[in-house]
Amino acid sequence: MGIIVGERINSTRKRIGQAIRDRDVARIQKEAKNQADAGATHIDVNAGTNPDRELEDMLWLIDTVQAVVDLPLSLDSANPAVVREVLPRVQKTPLINSISGESNRIEGMVELVASNAGPVVALTMDDSGLPEDVAGRLKAAATIRDVLNKAGVDDDRIVFDPLLRPLSTNPDQVAVFLEAVSRLRKEFPAAHQICGMSNISFGLPNRNNINKAFMTLALAAGMDCFVLDPTEPGIMANYHAARAVLCMDEYCMEYIMQSREGRL
Amino acid sequence: MGIIVGERINSTRKRIGQAIRDRDVARIQKEAKNQADAGATHIDVNAGTNPDRELEDMLWLIDTVQAVVDLPLSLDSANPAVVREVLPRVQKTPLINSISGESNRIEGMVELVASNAGPVVALTMDDSGLPEDVAGRLKAAATIRDVLNKAGVDDDRIVFDPLLRPLSTNPDQVAVFLEAVSRLRKEFPAAHQICGMSNISFGLPNRNNINKAFMTLALAAGMDCFVLDPTEPGIMANYHAARAVLCMDEYCMEYIMQSREGRL
Repeated sequence: MGIIVGERINSTRKRIGQAIRDRDVARIQKEAKNQADAGATHIDVNAGTNPDRELEDMLWLIDTVQAVVDLPLSLDSANPAVVREVLPRVQKTPLINSISGESNRIEGMVELVASNAGPVVALTMDDSGLPEDVAGRLKAAATIRDVLNKAGVDDDRIVFDPLLRPLSTNPDQVAVFLEAVSRLRKEFPAAHQICGMSNISFGLPNRNNINKAFMTLALAAGMDCFVLDPTEPGIMANYHAARAVLCMDEYCMEYIMQSREGRL
Repeated sequence: MGIIVGERINSTRKRIGQAIRDRDVARIQKEAKNQADAGATHIDVNAGTNPDRELEDMLWLIDTVQAVVDLPLSLDSANPAVVREVLPRVQKTPLINSISGESNRIEGMVELVASNAGPVVALTMDDSGLPEDVAGRLKAAATIRDVLNKAGVDDDRIVFDPLLRPLSTNPDQVAVFLEAVSRLRKEFPAAHQICGMSNISFGLPNRNNINKAFMTLALAAGMDCFVLDPTEPGIMANYHAARAVLCMDEYCMEYIMQSREGRL
């Protein structure tokens, strides 16, 4: 099984932003527990909406989540100063989310990633901006991978994020995205791949159906990790079912076990 | 949109077999209407479990279904004598289900298919039996296609069925099946492809998840038609969502319309 980052504890979500401001422990802990119960392997913590308070908000989030959930965290910050300060507070080796090939996001972040024994999300973008095509994503991936490898971060700790855009505004980009996933899988077989899954359905009605169909195609193309809301109805069931159909789950044992545990 | 054959009115299903024996008009008509409401494009009628009574049972089924539903039927019989007798009773040009490359299923059936203006399901098997590999399916497809073309049935009326087997008993066969779909799509671009979708999940728990993930992958590979139970929760929503994600539904218009009509 790959990494499933539970995305719900994110300050850009109105109620979560409010809960962070209010230091609403119960609310945050409920979100953490629900996501763990639903099958997340990592709990994302993001306090980026208030840059002035990001550090203290992150420290509070980390303590609050760790008090009730035994999973590793996904430290969701673009600010190396914040990541540096919070790392000692984290109990289990976290996922660092994220670095990219942009000079200003390499500086300061690479040494932190190297010092952490865990995985890192590497956005496939560089100083030339958000790539429109497959080649741009591969080029940006190669750039950031070189930097990481040189710092001692091997491919199996790199989780490329090929930057998914909404189907509604970029219909042609879905095929480009899936092709990029497939090429990254071939080019860097030991590396992992992740995306913010629900981006696909932004702006469409009944998003859940779109999310599931996309997830199945992404898994088929070679994506093995997802940032998602594991409490979204049926999404984890779809994950296990797609892995079974794609023969990533020998004899469907994982699927059958999930069913026995009443999770499907 | 491709053909969606509603599969529920099949005598091998215990309650339906009973309803046919009892001449239970209400039961059969309810099944027909529910499937039409759920989005079937064709209603399958199968009375094959009692070969001695197949003809009279089929005639009754056809009359019973046509009295309440305005969709074309899928005449599900391997017996040319039955198909010949019932064809004049059918109001809308039906799908004939099915023919194959086996000598005993070509004889008698080809002329009926040619005389019918509609599509025909062509099983990709011949006298050498059920193919285990991609090549066997392609060879059988080419054989039956030649026979049909010579009889005046063009590719766009041929609906290949590459014979789906259960994931639980043939895990490796899923990849073989999808590869066959992809090759058939390239080799015979004007022809259609269909399968009995729920075969995939036979023997597994929570079959619905498996069915949906498989359907998405089959659509991606080039399958455009399905035999399924359109009343299965979420299955038609998955069909429309997968088509949207695969850019088979320009600007997601069909998906958005389905949503507005409360069908997703």
